[in-house]
Amino acid sequence: MLTKNQIKLISSLKQKKFRLQHGLFVVEGLKTINELIASHFKLYQLFTIDSFKIDANLETIISESELNKISFLSTPNKALAIFKIPEPQLIQENQLIVALDNVRDPGNLGTIIRLCDWFGIKDLVCNLETVDCYNPKVIQATMGSITRVNVTYLDLKTFLNKSSLHSFGTFMYGENVYNKQLPKNGVLVLGNEANGISEDIESLVLEKIFIPRFGTIQVAESLNVATATAILLSEFKRNIIET
Amino acid sequence: MLTKNQIKLISSLKQKKFRLQHGLFVVEGLKTINELIASHFKLYQLFTIDSFKIDANLETIISESELNKISFLSTPNKALAIFKIPEPQLIQENQLIVALDNVRDPGNLGTIIRLCDWFGIKDLVCNLETVDCYNPKVIQATMGSITRVNVTYLDLKTFLNKSSLHSFGTFMYGENVYNKQLPKNGVLVLGNEANGISEDIESLVLEKIFIPRFGTIQVAESLNVATATAILLSEFKRNIIET
Repeated sequence: MLTKNQIKLISSLKQKKFRLQHGLFVVEGLKTINELIASHFKLYQLFTIDSFKIDANLETIISESELNKISFLSTPNKALAIFKIPEPQLIQENQLIVALDNVRDPGNLGTIIRLCDWFGIKDLVCNLETVDCYNPKVIQATMGSITRVNVTYLDLKTFLNKSSLHSFGTFMYGENVYNKQLPKNGVLVLGNEANGISEDIESLVLEKIFIPRFGTIQVAESLNVATATAILLSEFKRNIIET
Repeated sequence: MLTKNQIKLISSLKQKKFRLQHGLFVVEGLKTINELIASHFKLYQLFTIDSFKIDANLETIISESELNKISFLSTPNKALAIFKIPEPQLIQENQLIVALDNVRDPGNLGTIIRLCDWFGIKDLVCNLETVDCYNPKVIQATMGSITRVNVTYLDLKTFLNKSSLHSFGTFMYGENVYNKQLPKNGVLVLGNEANGISEDIESLVLEKIFIPRFGTIQVAESLNVATATAILLSEFKRNIIET
């Protein structure tokens, strides 16, 4: 049985303001919930049709119609869990870090977290205007990768100013990335979907790079930020293999 | 003023069955509509708040509330156009072709079409179960790239059997793509979001390749099909630059 307060709490967690206030976020889908339970994330409360056989205090068995009522999905998936938002871990500077400047689309952030996981990137730093990684649509898109990537929200200008790492970012006038020798360590900065890297940050990016376009002269859109991240992480990592 | 028949026609074009029956599809957003008008696509009818100053027979000025009524978007964007579905052009075999086997997500297909455009891929061939490229969500995601990539739906088994091109596809047990010499011409096959390349097609793929994973041993998800396409097209094209 669901209480009114539980329904109210879950519904409020759609909004960043209430996620921060409660320090909680929502995860749906058996696979992702199980991955988070097995990780360092702390379960706060689980609402499920079938028991997960975990601590009974943490679990509430609900009916399918109750799940339909609380789910954020159009096709609810057997369980909805609330987890505690973890404290970000200390950023490790002796590696390749991905930095996001105003990435707004939840699907893009989710895909980038999944890419960081694939390419062994431990730290993703985001400026404060980047979409919240505990947004339900982001969590959905990460497919569990959120448990293996440390996401830290910070003032990106201060971070880049203080960091001893070499920084890289994509610009239309940048150097062909295929001709660059890329280091093992560094900060790879990716910008906003429509406007790219902001002027403030541009001046702090030491190496301006570019993924060449092979299509017709009629230049259309830039690459989507998530697909650009995929290509650039591949470029950074393929180099390590070769050396 | 909109007629009842116009409203009925537009609404029917959400479904593939009616798109095929009428040979028409819907495009929204000024930027994409203008790109399509400037291309080889033939405009059938335009519904717009402000005149495009085109042939008056093709244009109907409507009110904002009328646009809200016919739009497929939650935030309609000043105009909605119906275009004729073009005849696919002849596939050019002396190049790199991308082939899709059961790609189901409209966003993924749209992103792949945009990637083909970026990397100068002229032909995208899709098996008959791949999502329709004239689906409004696909068109939206291509950002105009649909005008520069020739998409052909066909029996993929027959196509691969008959083609003289070397075929490549990603498999968990494939060869590290970073160690491969990739040719200028070929067919790059990408599979379904959940199941990868189907068994039927697997036996026809000559070169099994793999994008290495750099993350922790706990292997999670595979790469998303659109991000895998981004990395592989980059690998094919970066080689050409180097040689």
